[in-house]
This record gives sequence, C-alpha cells and structure tokens, in this order.
Amino acid sequence: MTLIADLTQALGAAHVLTGPDLARFRSEVTHHYHPDPVAAVRPASRDEVVTVLQIAAKHGVAVLPASGRTGLTGGLMTKGGLILSVERLNKIRAIKPAARIAIVEAGVVLDSLHKAAEAEGLYFPLWFGARGSAMIGGVLSTNAGGSNVLRYGSTRALCLGLEVVLADGRVLNLMSELHKDNSGYDLKQIFIGAEGTLGVITAAVMKLVPRPRAYATATLAARSLPDALVLLNRLQAASGGAVEAFEYMPASYMAQMALARPEIRQPFTPRAEVNILVELGTLREDEARPGPDGAVPLTALLETTLAQMLEEGMVLDAEIAQTEAQRAEMWRRRELASEVMTSRQPTIDTDICLPTDQVATFLYRIHARLPALDAGAETISVAHLGDGNVHFTVFPTDASPEHYDRVVEAVEDEVQALGGSFSAEHGVGLSKLPSMKRRKDPVALEVMRALKTSLDPDNRMNPGKVIPEA
Amino acid sequence: MTLIADLTQALGAAHVLTGPDLARFRSEVTHHYHPDPVAAVRPASRDEVVTVLQIAAKHGVAVLPASGRTGLTGGLMTKGGLILSVERLNKIRAIKPAARIAIVEAGVVLDSLHKAAEAEGLYFPLWFGARGSAMIGGVLSTNAGGSNVLRYGSTRALCLGLEVVLADGRVLNLMSELHKDNSGYDLKQIFIGAEGTLGVITAAVMKLVPRPRAYATATLAARSLPDALVLLNRLQAASGGAVEAFEYMPASYMAQMALARPEIRQPFTPRAEVNILVELGTLREDEARPGPDGAVPLTALLETTLAQMLEEGMVLDAEIAQTEAQRAEMWRRRELASEVMTSRQPTIDTDICLPTDQVATFLYRIHARLPALDAGAETISVAHLGDGNVHFTVFPTDASPEHYDRVVEAVEDEVQALGGSFSAEHGVGLSKLPSMKRRKDPVALEVMRALKTSLDPDNRMNPGKVIPEA
Repeated sequence: MTLIADLTQALGAAHVLTGPDLARFRSEVTHHYHPDPVAAVRPASRDEVVTVLQIAAKHGVAVLPASGRTGLTGGLMTKGGLILSVERLNKIRAIKPAARIAIVEAGVVLDSLHKAAEAEGLYFPLWFGARGSAMIGGVLSTNAGGSNVLRYGSTRALCLGLEVVLADGRVLNLMSELHKDNSGYDLKQIFIGAEGTLGVITAAVMKLVPRPRAYATATLAARSLPDALVLLNRLQAASGGAVEAFEYMPASYMAQMALARPEIRQPFTPRAEVNILVELGTLREDEARPGPDGAVPLTALLETTLAQMLEEGMVLDAEIAQTEAQRAEMWRRRELASEVMTSRQPTIDTDICLPTDQVATFLYRIHARLPALDAGAETISVAHLGDGNVHFTVFPTDASPEHYDRVVEAVEDEVQALGGSFSAEHGVGLSKLPSMKRRKDPVALEVMRALKTSLDPDNRMNPGKVIPEA
Repeated sequence: MTLIADLTQALGAAHVLTGPDLARFRSEVTHHYHPDPVAAVRPASRDEVVTVLQIAAKHGVAVLPASGRTGLTGGLMTKGGLILSVERLNKIRAIKPAARIAIVEAGVVLDSLHKAAEAEGLYFPLWFGARGSAMIGGVLSTNAGGSNVLRYGSTRALCLGLEVVLADGRVLNLMSELHKDNSGYDLKQIFIGAEGTLGVITAAVMKLVPRPRAYATATLAARSLPDALVLLNRLQAASGGAVEAFEYMPASYMAQMALARPEIRQPFTPRAEVNILVELGTLREDEARPGPDGAVPLTALLETTLAQMLEEGMVLDAEIAQTEAQRAEMWRRRELASEVMTSRQPTIDTDICLPTDQVATFLYRIHARLPALDAGAETISVAHLGDGNVHFTVFPTDASPEHYDRVVEAVEDEVQALGGSFSAEHGVGLSKLPSMKRRKDPVALEVMRALKTSLDPDNRMNPGKVIPEA
C-alpha cells in the first residue's frame, strides 16, 4: 500500500489531507518559506500518533510535528515530508487547583489553557501575542518565552511532565506531577526545545500559579536604557520581585506604528526615545484592596517609585493605567509589534539575548557599525528588557540573501562579544542553522548530533532543523 | 607506563592518592558501602581533568567524579575505579551582583558560595544540612534539593550554564550567563542529575537571588497534616508566596531526638504529633522595618495567621522566633535529622515524593500495611512538606536484605498508587537501582541507556549507577 493509503486506512480520509485540503500547511506566518509536504495528518489520540509514526517509518518518510504553526524560524519547512498536526489532541484532561497543575494534550491552544486556569483562580504564566493560536506542543517544542519570563521563567520552567512518541512509535511516559523527582536523567528536558527533531510531544503536565489579585501597569518614558534598568531594580526591591513584565519600545517603533496603525493613540508628545511598558502583579489581597485614600497599594507603590524617578530626572514622563481598558491599550501597543514590523519590507529579524546591562552597549555598537554595511538601513528594537531579549529588526536597503547574512553576522559578532546568544526565544528552525554552525560550541553540536542519532537513527523527525550538518 | 605512573607524571605524586592516602575515599557517609578504588586523583584545573580522562580512557579504567561526598545512595561505590575528586577546582571565579550570578568551579563548597553571595547582599538558595561539605559539582550531579525548594526550586532551576568534560576528554562549553538561550538542545539538563555517569562537571554559572531582608520563623503544632497544608496555603496567600521552608517533624522524631540529643530543648509539652517548622522571607524593605508597635510586618503577618488558626483549632500551639538564636535553635532541630536517624540502627531509609495533598494518605496507608510485614517496626517520617518530599524511615526488627527489599517495595507500591516517585532529591546511585528497574517507565530506561551509550560508549563514567541493566 502507498503511504497515503496506509494513513487513510488508519485515520480515515477526513484526517489525511492532500491536494487543496493541504493549502494551509503550504504557507506559514513569515512568508519566507514555502513548505511542500506530501500530506498532513490529524491523529486524534496518542495511539493514532503511534500508528502514524509506525506508518511513516515503514515508508521512510520524514515527519514534521505541527501544532499552532506560529513559529518564526521556518521550523515546518519541508519538501515531501509528512505534517503531523496535533490540533485534534486538544483536551485539557484536568486542572488540579490544589496541586496547581494542568494536564493537557499537545493541541490545546494557549488561550484555552489561560481561560481554564482563570476559571479556577489560577494563571498559566506564558503570555505572548500569538497566544490565540499557539498550542502547547509548539510552545514546549520551542521553549517559548514572551512577556512574563521575567517573573515565571520560559516554558521549560513551567513543565513538570511530558509524554512523547519517539520516531519508531515507542511511547515515553514522563507524566510526573511532582515538583521533586530525581529518578534518573530528566529526559523531558531534551524534548523541550528540540523543535520536533527527537519525537512528538503528545501531552504535558504544566504548572499553574496563583492568579495575581491586582495589576499595576504603566507606560513611561525613561531618560535612557540604563535609567530604565534602575527603575526595574527599584520596583523589584520595593515590591519583592512582583514585576511581571518590563518591555522596551523605542521611538522608531512608535513612529512605525503611527504609519501602520494611525488610529492607535501614541503615549507621549513629543515622541519619547525610551518607552517602557511595566506591569506589576500582586498575589496579596492586602495589596489589591483600595486603602482609605482610594488607592490600591500596588498602584501606589508604582506611582511613588515613578514620582521619585521623575524628580531625579531618570524618568521623563509616565502614565499609569487607571482602568482595565487603559491597561489593554498599553498592552495592545506592545502586542502589535509583529504586525507593525511586517508592515514594512524587507526586514532582517533577529531574536537575541544579552546580559540585561549590556543591551544599551549592544545597541550603541551595532548602530555605530551598521552604516558601514548599509548606509540607508533603519532599525527597530523592541525588547523584553527585563530578560535582555531584544528583537532587533533591520530594514535594509539591499534585499539580497548575501546582505542579509552580512548584517546578521555583524549583529552576532557584537552579541557574542558581549556574552549574548544569537537565539533567545524563537528557536533555531531553519533560519538560524547558519548561526548555529558559526557560533555554537563545536562539541555541543557534536553532542546534539549524537543525541539525535541515538533517538532518531534514520533522521526522519523534522530533519534538517536545529542542528547544522557537520 | 602503568595507570598510576601516567597519572603521577601528569598531576604530580601529591595528587595521585594510593595506599593509606586513599583511606578517606574508602569510606562514605552511610557506611553501607565500602568503595575500593584503584586510586584517587585531584586535578587542579579543567585541563588536568581532560588529561585524567584521556589517561583513564587509554587504560580502560572507570572514572567516578567525586566532590563533597555527602551523597546517600552509594553513588561513589567502586571496585577498582578511579576517583576523580574536583576538590581542588575550588575557585569562585566571579560573583556578578548586577546580573545576580555566580561563576563557580565544581569543587566550591556550598557554604563558601553562601558566604560569597551574602557579601554582595545576595543569596544562593540551596540549603540543606550537609552544606558545609557538599560541593557544587555534586549538588548539580544529583540535582540536590533541601529546605528552600518550595520557593526557589531544586539545583536544576538555579543553573544557567555548565562546563563538562566528556568521557573521551572533549570539553563541552555551555557556560551561558543568560536567562533565555534557545540555541539547540539544552544539553546542560542531561548532565544535571546524571550523577557523574555522562561526564565530569567542572564549572557552572549559578543564579543568585536577592537576600531576604527579614525572616519570620515559627515552630508550631498542627492538629493534622491537612490542617498544616491549610496553614501553608493561607501563609502563601497572605504573603504573596513568601514561604521559604515548610518542614514536618512527627512526634516519633522528637522522641528519638530526646534520646539521641537530650540537651536539645523540645518545642512542646506534651509532645505534639505534627510539628511544623515554617519560615517566611521577605524581599521588601517595608516588611523588614519594625512598625510603630515595634513588630516587623512579616512577623506580624505570621503571628496573625497562626492566631487565627489557633482560634479555629487547626493549630494547637506555636512559638515564633524572636531572636536569631531562637531561629537557629528551631533550624537545629530540623537539621539534626540525619544524625538522629543514624543514632538508631538498623534503618530503612527512603526519599519519596508525593503530591502534597497525598502525604497524609500515604502515611495512613503505609502504617496500616507495615504491621503485616514487620509487627515490631517503628517509623519516623521527616518531610519537606511543602514539596511533598518525605524522608520515610523504618526501624525494622529484621536486618536482612530481603526484609529491606520487602519494606521498600511496600513503600513504593503505596507511593506509586498515589502518583508519587520513589526518588525525590537524593538521586538513584546504587541503592535505588532496583527501584528504577521496578518502577520507572521501561521506554524511559531504554532512552537513558541510549543516551549513556552515545556519550560514554565504553561505559567508563561511574558505571553501574543510575540506570539498571536491561
């Protein structure tokens, strides 16, 4: 039997997509890649995933695990591979409020988990723009980050247990619900962030946290990036580490937003150079209850700190959200980033991480270097500043791949010199393979290849991604 | 040349220990094992570690990485292997206060790191009885836990970067100082908790946290374990998650302490069944400053919560530490556990983890089952209750290995039925190999064997530990 016949017999024709039904799997969000899969299958259970992998093994076809398909690095690019979509493995099996965990299947949309947790007074603290379509399988496979990493860590820090189907169809059951479990190598860790190259994640045990009882949110203009970091440190000290997000948006971003989305109200006139969106969240009832003066203590704490820094000249202006609508407006400005950036083409996107106190130095150095490479290039760098994670975007005057590489290499040079990484939260996929080859420790690459070979000897799980060829 | 001659030429005679110099490496803290190494070497640098591993490879000798040697599972047992002690790799290379990280070598004693961090107003939040001799290499290799895991996580959660020398002498440089770094598989994770079976950890980048500005510490008698968990949840809600430790000591432990250390003042008369040591730590200055009534707000918060629960009958009695000496006395009671337990022999020790709300059920079930196995057996179960981690100790009337196995299997049955793990924080070593064989997912064992083979094909890194034979 052919591959398609085998798959159809196993899953039913409705769940083996070919021809026109395959259209949505032939495009992807960045529009840089044009996948050409042989088919896409939509198994409904772990056992069907096992069957699909056994059929794929029999036919020697590559398998690309897919979930929300919001990745930005070409991780689902293929010529002739089989897309294994986990979209029908979409059950939240359990929310256990006492233990503060969620047991979820890989196809659960991030926002569904947000809502289910919220219904129990809890929060799943992984928050980014694509949360309406990104799914658990993908966020685990890329170790996704976002705006709350500062307080709660990346996806890896939120995962207690995992179920994985290996290339040959074996099921690896690591669905521990425990916070301490030293029973041999912590195998789940190699599948988190492996981008589907080692197996298919089918289910997970995720941590939940208490839902903050109140937020205090502000947009402010800082005199400089170092001044913004002074603010971050003061807020952390005053609140006992309650800063949930600390996001940087430069004037260039606000200007591009004014072009792309003129209806969005701009925060400061004249435009400020260093715009910061800061949010604190309190777990304490006493900080969420308005005091005798009507002010919520958490908001008062933010106000006091900002007022002090205004007086010292380190903060130039600030607005504090007084209503949920104002808070939503502030977040909207930040979450339009991906739309605002793609409104102008061509772009060279990077996703770099630096020690937080080196971000300003990096920007200073790269802006000094860039004119020699491309005199007309402009840049926008939106950042999760609290993590040192900069989405440094260049609008080049030359759209050639060679120029792209030159600019990326210049960025990476400066990043590496400052102890940073060329890849912060988006993963490697296809687009950062050259960077892996240039920048990653060669022994680390050898060890990755050895692990890959030991778990996927025929190189059929998302082949050609993450690890560059030797 | 012989192995010893090669090693002596490379390191100098003073650092190749044989004969009587080897005595300390022939004993270990549990006294259950009697290692018989061919020699112990003390390299002074990473490059010397490389040389030792190359020499060991040439001679085909097994290598056992050793550091503080405080492990409780026979992880350093050997007949004829070479002990590679990292005790001379003992430099704290840097403390970076702004980035809140420490760059340390594997032989740094935990307490030295505590002191170095404290000098910068920071804290390294890994805290357990053996901190005066345990070293970073060992705590990483066992993913050590302790009393602060509730707030800060196990060792794994505190590690940003790692340097490892592989079995063949290759150096794997993963010394990232970043909080976000998605550049391929997160390889450090497989060496953390691998107990020296995959390579030698030589250096690490560890996270530091702000040092709490004040502690509030109490010993209390709860009516029951479920009531104690109500207290924990109320304290977390009131303090915004500021509970640093929540430790359980039963009446049986206090009675054994009265025998072993009669000079230690007992907390309650008559003896309470459920003794809890609770500690909160605040990062906020305003909670550490005495208010107009002289009380520190954090202590007042603890007092208020305890008073309320006394009134409701869930707490029977409580004492709050008013001085640092009183706080130290409370901690001393808990930290004597290992001494108090070994004062009575024979013992059957276990280190199990349960969902926190299942600890009481486990104790109820195992105490119902134990008399049929050993009518005269007594038990003591000291626990990191906030993590569900119970050190369940049985004093059997039969010292035979067969009886030991029977009791351990009964404990494991009950643990597994409640979704727990047979191994929480001590690791597997040699003593829990049978448990790994009985209880661990068989595919997980296969994958561990595959990883081990891919990194250590000749099975020379701490052979025979962690992974049971197929």
